[in-house]
Amino acid sequence: MISDETSDNVLSQLHISLCDLNQRGYDIEIGSGNLERIGLFISRFKPYSQVVVLADTNVRDNGYSDMVVRSLTDIGADVFVEVIRSGEQSKSVETAIKIWSDFLEVGIDRNSILVSVGGGVIGDLGGFVAAAYTRGIRFFQVPTTLLAQVDSSVGGKVGVDLPQAKNMVGFFHQPLGVLIDSDVLKTLPDIEYVCGLGEVAKYAVSLDAELFNMLETNADKVKARDSELIRFIVTKCCKIKGQIVEEDEFEKTGKRVLLNYGHTFAHVFEIVSKFTLPHGQAVAIGSIYAAKLAAELGITDKNFVDRQIKFHNSIGLPVELPEELFVTINWKEVIDLMQHDKKTESGKLRFVLPTKIGQCKVVNNVDPKNIYNLTGLSQNS
Amino acid sequence: MISDETSDNVLSQLHISLCDLNQRGYDIEIGSGNLERIGLFISRFKPYSQVVVLADTNVRDNGYSDMVVRSLTDIGADVFVEVIRSGEQSKSVETAIKIWSDFLEVGIDRNSILVSVGGGVIGDLGGFVAAAYTRGIRFFQVPTTLLAQVDSSVGGKVGVDLPQAKNMVGFFHQPLGVLIDSDVLKTLPDIEYVCGLGEVAKYAVSLDAELFNMLETNADKVKARDSELIRFIVTKCCKIKGQIVEEDEFEKTGKRVLLNYGHTFAHVFEIVSKFTLPHGQAVAIGSIYAAKLAAELGITDKNFVDRQIKFHNSIGLPVELPEELFVTINWKEVIDLMQHDKKTESGKLRFVLPTKIGQCKVVNNVDPKNIYNLTGLSQNS
Repeated sequence: MISDETSDNVLSQLHISLCDLNQRGYDIEIGSGNLERIGLFISRFKPYSQVVVLADTNVRDNGYSDMVVRSLTDIGADVFVEVIRSGEQSKSVETAIKIWSDFLEVGIDRNSILVSVGGGVIGDLGGFVAAAYTRGIRFFQVPTTLLAQVDSSVGGKVGVDLPQAKNMVGFFHQPLGVLIDSDVLKTLPDIEYVCGLGEVAKYAVSLDAELFNMLETNADKVKARDSELIRFIVTKCCKIKGQIVEEDEFEKTGKRVLLNYGHTFAHVFEIVSKFTLPHGQAVAIGSIYAAKLAAELGITDKNFVDRQIKFHNSIGLPVELPEELFVTINWKEVIDLMQHDKKTESGKLRFVLPTKIGQCKVVNNVDPKNIYNLTGLSQNS
Repeated sequence: MISDETSDNVLSQLHISLCDLNQRGYDIEIGSGNLERIGLFISRFKPYSQVVVLADTNVRDNGYSDMVVRSLTDIGADVFVEVIRSGEQSKSVETAIKIWSDFLEVGIDRNSILVSVGGGVIGDLGGFVAAAYTRGIRFFQVPTTLLAQVDSSVGGKVGVDLPQAKNMVGFFHQPLGVLIDSDVLKTLPDIEYVCGLGEVAKYAVSLDAELFNMLETNADKVKARDSELIRFIVTKCCKIKGQIVEEDEFEKTGKRVLLNYGHTFAHVFEIVSKFTLPHGQAVAIGSIYAAKLAAELGITDKNFVDRQIKFHNSIGLPVELPEELFVTINWKEVIDLMQHDKKTESGKLRFVLPTKIGQCKVVNNVDPKNIYNLTGLSQNS
């Protein structure tokens, strides 16, 4: 059950309960100044041997990993810092091999804890590294981007990309906890903020009409990064995701797949852009394509698409592929790649499509023709 | 609970029940001609999309993978065959990347089943590949060596090696089932048979006095590969391991670690031999070293060591490192490497040591000095 508490420093504390004999579960704590308090959180998980702080060059340059290391050193932890190059290209099996080798070198053992400090790449990669090292060590998520805070740090999906497809290799490996520092969003670059909003819009449009209405009404505040509003958004999104993960941790019942609105298009857009199109932007564009597909299939109406486009415009989200990609994209290749998506079974195209604001459903066996219809091209062109 | 049934073709059928809400569990079926009947077993797990047969060049050259493919084709399965080079060097993350890329190429999806046909390398690698591909696909074990039949195919430990250490990266991923064909042992090369006996002796010496006495009394039959005796041995070893795995699937309670008698030495011997020393032989030699260490520490007596050495000699198992390795080995390096073993916590040396025939215990904080004492060298030499 997702429970929600607030106290002084802590803006919100959610708890995710996972359904099994071990009564697993973990807290998501959202607050101001949390990076400097991580030692307190980690010390709850004694005994441990070493604590690994995994960060990328951006996080290091922002001084965030230093803050985390200081806090951990203050509680007497034996800290090892692993810094990798920032960017999606680091989310690879090759980077994982490099990290595992470093772990062996410095003697990281199965009683160590890995703390991922960074965006989605660091969280997913850190979880992957932790899930497999000596058949699994504990890990803790400290997401420092809006996208990671509202989405990727919660729910235990970890993994890396293969050159041919994103997130193709991975596991379900739940973290010990998620610590969200709302302060880091103040200095987040615009492009990262927009990426996070891509996932926020996904929750709103496909799963939560109340959130959608609130964002639609307060679009100016969203663009201006109003602190109070952002905290509300982060808490709300973690709550939506946490509830779904509680119901369907391993994506077995069809519930969890509903989190993927816009993602089938998005994954492929990322690949054909050679990962120059950031994930959150790809999701924003992908969900507009999914909305158009839903209208094409008669699942929703054109008003829905127009309203979503207007909403995206009002909060600064893209609605179409960047010009360069738009003019060069090969739709046959796009559909081929969708048929290789890991959520695809037996090559049949499957999408999460919206029915009305705040609601969506899975649609199987979509005919490629309907996707060509969105592009204005014929299937043979 | 391990249950045991016999019928016509089936020599033994064991069932492992794993303790969780999903009531997981799987059968180990030991019989004659099972390779040609695999289609029957796999068809129980419908629906599935493709069936991948993973084998190595040895298994292919013996015609075993063809037998499996024929049986699967007979039941109408869509079969994809992946053959890798035989040998421990294939048990790497790099091989896994190659296989995952091939899977993407031919459209293996998350509803596919992977069937590992081969020895320990193929079983461990196949399980690793299956555990991570699209966050986990189902897999089935068809072990074709004595070592894989009595040990590595049962229990769900899967993984690959890093250049610095064996099995350093992996997961617990239980198979759908284990199908053991007793016929394949008839043509097993002597060296492979001896390797399997290394693990059989481990069970006998450290966990099952009844098995030990039976093998000691029937050493000639063991060497002569008496069919009936071998089937008894395979069934007995699967039963011992199955019971331990039921009690401690994730190596949390200290029970499962008892399966590692001789293995701390063995893993390091394999590394310093650059993997020219096969695992089963390394275990045989490692368990003699462990017995000597137990005597050195006063946990057992010298008679125990002598009896084990005599037993090894009587069934054709090695008791000492090959001459070439024996004269060049650097014991300081050996101890360093042991401190990097994944079962090591905080660099403290920990061993499973025998107390008497059929019994063993975990001994923590062993002083490196005691290991030097076994070698006749001083710690500073």
